[in-house]
Amino acid sequence: MKIAVAKGDGIGPEIMEAVLKIFTANNVPLEYEFVDMGKWVFDKGFSNGMTPEAKQTIESLGALFKGPMETPKGKGVKSVNVTARKTWNTYANKRVFQTLHGVDTVFSKAGINIDITVVRENIEDTYGGIEHMLTHDVALSRRFITRPGSMQLIRYAFEMAKKKNARRITCGHKANIMKITDGLFLECFHEVAKDYPELKADDIIVDDLCMKLVTRPDTFDVVVLTNLQGDIVSDLCAGLVGGLGFAPSANIGDHICIFEAVHGTAPDIAGKNIANPTALLLSGISMLQHVGLIENAAIIENALLYTLESGVHTGDFGDKKIPSVNTTQFAEAIINNFGKQPKTNAKVVIPNKPGTPAPFKLAQNSMMISRESTDEKIVGVDMFIESEEQPLQIAKKCERHAGVKFKLVSISNRGTQVWPTGSVYTNLVNQYNARFESLDGDPLNQQDVIGLYVSLSGNFKICSFELLNMWGDKKAYSLAQGQ
Amino acid sequence: MKIAVAKGDGIGPEIMEAVLKIFTANNVPLEYEFVDMGKWVFDKGFSNGMTPEAKQTIESLGALFKGPMETPKGKGVKSVNVTARKTWNTYANKRVFQTLHGVDTVFSKAGINIDITVVRENIEDTYGGIEHMLTHDVALSRRFITRPGSMQLIRYAFEMAKKKNARRITCGHKANIMKITDGLFLECFHEVAKDYPELKADDIIVDDLCMKLVTRPDTFDVVVLTNLQGDIVSDLCAGLVGGLGFAPSANIGDHICIFEAVHGTAPDIAGKNIANPTALLLSGISMLQHVGLIENAAIIENALLYTLESGVHTGDFGDKKIPSVNTTQFAEAIINNFGKQPKTNAKVVIPNKPGTPAPFKLAQNSMMISRESTDEKIVGVDMFIESEEQPLQIAKKCERHAGVKFKLVSISNRGTQVWPTGSVYTNLVNQYNARFESLDGDPLNQQDVIGLYVSLSGNFKICSFELLNMWGDKKAYSLAQGQ
Repeated sequence: MKIAVAKGDGIGPEIMEAVLKIFTANNVPLEYEFVDMGKWVFDKGFSNGMTPEAKQTIESLGALFKGPMETPKGKGVKSVNVTARKTWNTYANKRVFQTLHGVDTVFSKAGINIDITVVRENIEDTYGGIEHMLTHDVALSRRFITRPGSMQLIRYAFEMAKKKNARRITCGHKANIMKITDGLFLECFHEVAKDYPELKADDIIVDDLCMKLVTRPDTFDVVVLTNLQGDIVSDLCAGLVGGLGFAPSANIGDHICIFEAVHGTAPDIAGKNIANPTALLLSGISMLQHVGLIENAAIIENALLYTLESGVHTGDFGDKKIPSVNTTQFAEAIINNFGKQPKTNAKVVIPNKPGTPAPFKLAQNSMMISRESTDEKIVGVDMFIESEEQPLQIAKKCERHAGVKFKLVSISNRGTQVWPTGSVYTNLVNQYNARFESLDGDPLNQQDVIGLYVSLSGNFKICSFELLNMWGDKKAYSLAQGQ
Repeated sequence: MKIAVAKGDGIGPEIMEAVLKIFTANNVPLEYEFVDMGKWVFDKGFSNGMTPEAKQTIESLGALFKGPMETPKGKGVKSVNVTARKTWNTYANKRVFQTLHGVDTVFSKAGINIDITVVRENIEDTYGGIEHMLTHDVALSRRFITRPGSMQLIRYAFEMAKKKNARRITCGHKANIMKITDGLFLECFHEVAKDYPELKADDIIVDDLCMKLVTRPDTFDVVVLTNLQGDIVSDLCAGLVGGLGFAPSANIGDHICIFEAVHGTAPDIAGKNIANPTALLLSGISMLQHVGLIENAAIIENALLYTLESGVHTGDFGDKKIPSVNTTQFAEAIINNFGKQPKTNAKVVIPNKPGTPAPFKLAQNSMMISRESTDEKIVGVDMFIESEEQPLQIAKKCERHAGVKFKLVSISNRGTQVWPTGSVYTNLVNQYNARFESLDGDPLNQQDVIGLYVSLSGNFKICSFELLNMWGDKKAYSLAQGQ
């Protein structure tokens, strides 16, 4: 089986060399095809940080093992890491955080054992990067959560949790505030949970989760979250076990998977053969597990744990009384410990079950549709208008434009209702949401909305609008605070 | 000076009684007017959880001291806590997290001393609660950050940091991903920082911040963040010092301030006189400081710290070998320790400087405008359309509607470009963003946008649109991933 390998920038090449040396010494049945990605590829003029050949190779092999990469700053180019994750739809980011004996933290010193797997949605949320200035004072980021995207992620998380015999799978969310977006994500979680009665599934508000992660991290096992919250929780968990240098990362898609170290490229120590390859090695182990090389994965991971337990360390961590080793020596120590069992967290060695790589070629993009759109109607529209006037003046003008189809039901500013009722203490910015609903409750069509828009545009700059839909008898929109 | 007091639900009345007893014993020169807020007010039919008399009293006094409150679930009512914060524009949430000797955590055991003040924006972000389902599969939350809202918050944070002689003030953000919204917040931070050269101001990506908070919390002092990130970081910090039972909260506005305990109402132990009043007492101390009663605040805080150091504790924390005391006894122990100095973190006792309450009545809502909107033009529009077709088919239809004013420049799905270039591996959902720009670079007007909308609506359901503005020569919108 062949995989694509991108060595990365800075310390990337030397830690990749160390990891591949360990793989080779363990007779890992993989071939490597090296591809061109990273800072020097940007510098050669490829604006997405990879050559067309690299892209083609990765797409044909389906697996990419990559070192840390740098994206040039101030050139307006997007991160090569993010581009790779999005373009190839690696919808799940899986990160395993476990206590490594030999890597001291306040938690390890307190005898608290951590073994948390964070599964983070990797495509949606504000990471879509869809942002607009609506007025000179008001910036908007469109945070979207989709049902098929959430289902895809959550199904993966449950399958993974089942395979690892997880004690618990927990959904972190903020559905008490983001009732529609995170509400949808949470609904998907509980829907999928029904298919896995053997797993203990529960949910927790994300702020409470973070408080509990720093007080009782040992109570969590698999945690699944949306993109930004997952990003924050992942790095928090990395801190619990010693930092990014000790945490692997896998980006899982249906066709292409990316295994990578997410720490920096450490240009200051690049080429000195002193960097710590642990995170990249753990990512590589995660890759071996993913492609079914579970025997190799277990032997190498046990050797790593044994090596760390025995006090061997690079210069960035470990007992200062024991002299540190360099990158090559660290790799050799692991190789010499193949077959040894660590005292804690030893992995069970099970024979390899390599999958047959399924060659595929997609003819077109997959359209993910999860819910039929029956029985829907438009019942109103939110018009986001720029104005520096007081709510009452705006209401008067809006009512004039409502015509025979609409009535003005509410005006809000930064989500708080300021008309027909509100408080004089609510400070305003120069962008209002004027909510219009169908005058007689009859369904509206796009022509009605256009009519209102044409009329309103005589008085206001309309920055943006959102339709108010009903799905059956359920409102598909939120009320303003105070409405 | 008179303040409004709401005792709260569950354990609220008994911990409030304990705190006011401590205040009275210390001759705090405050009068209390008790107001009706909380679950039992919802139950009486007041849908925002407070009586009109309560609202009037609080607005006339300008300060509210409140116990924990419950919002009835499943009745569609919004949280009384959130309503209060928004209606009265308490734009800054200030929370102080300090190591309390006597309250054991893994950090206190490791000898790491924590003293972090989190200042969180309290109105904006996805907490505006402006959410819509765009299709049956796609949910949207509008995350907005405003310039005047950010400036108001950040100015408060710097003033507060200056008063407390902070070693450092740090802005936590995700401006590497949310370049426009968090970019605006970060820009405001660095702009305000210029006026405070005596303070060491820096910024950090929020995920990195959370990793560092669990490894080196002692390196932070004042941290300022947007709403959701601030919510998460606040609770993380609460965990570092022992939980919500040991963390005060103050909501600061220009006219009205709210000081409250943010832990739960603990109905299971309500009325038993065993609850821990520490968080509410610390919130009360924060209130005393805010109204200039800094001598009372310091004496009471020192007595609290001394009491905790001496091993006195309620049943929920502390050394199990020392019998716990009840709520009343805990308050009495603090009263008996007035004038004593704790070994660590003792507060300097400075004479009171009570402010004169400035009676005010707002005639109208304040419109916050921070930037003049000169030299702006509309250069295009993003049309968010519902479709299950492939990108190429959509592009063909869209181009047909572009007319003589617009050209179709890009189609993206979940923020990733899928036309004119893209990857077949990008999975799609049934909502696309079709980006149209001015054909000849000339500025557009609303009539042009209406024309395009009318034409497109013949082929598609338009869920939503956003104008593409230029401010001077700067694009006021983001590019799609891959665009």
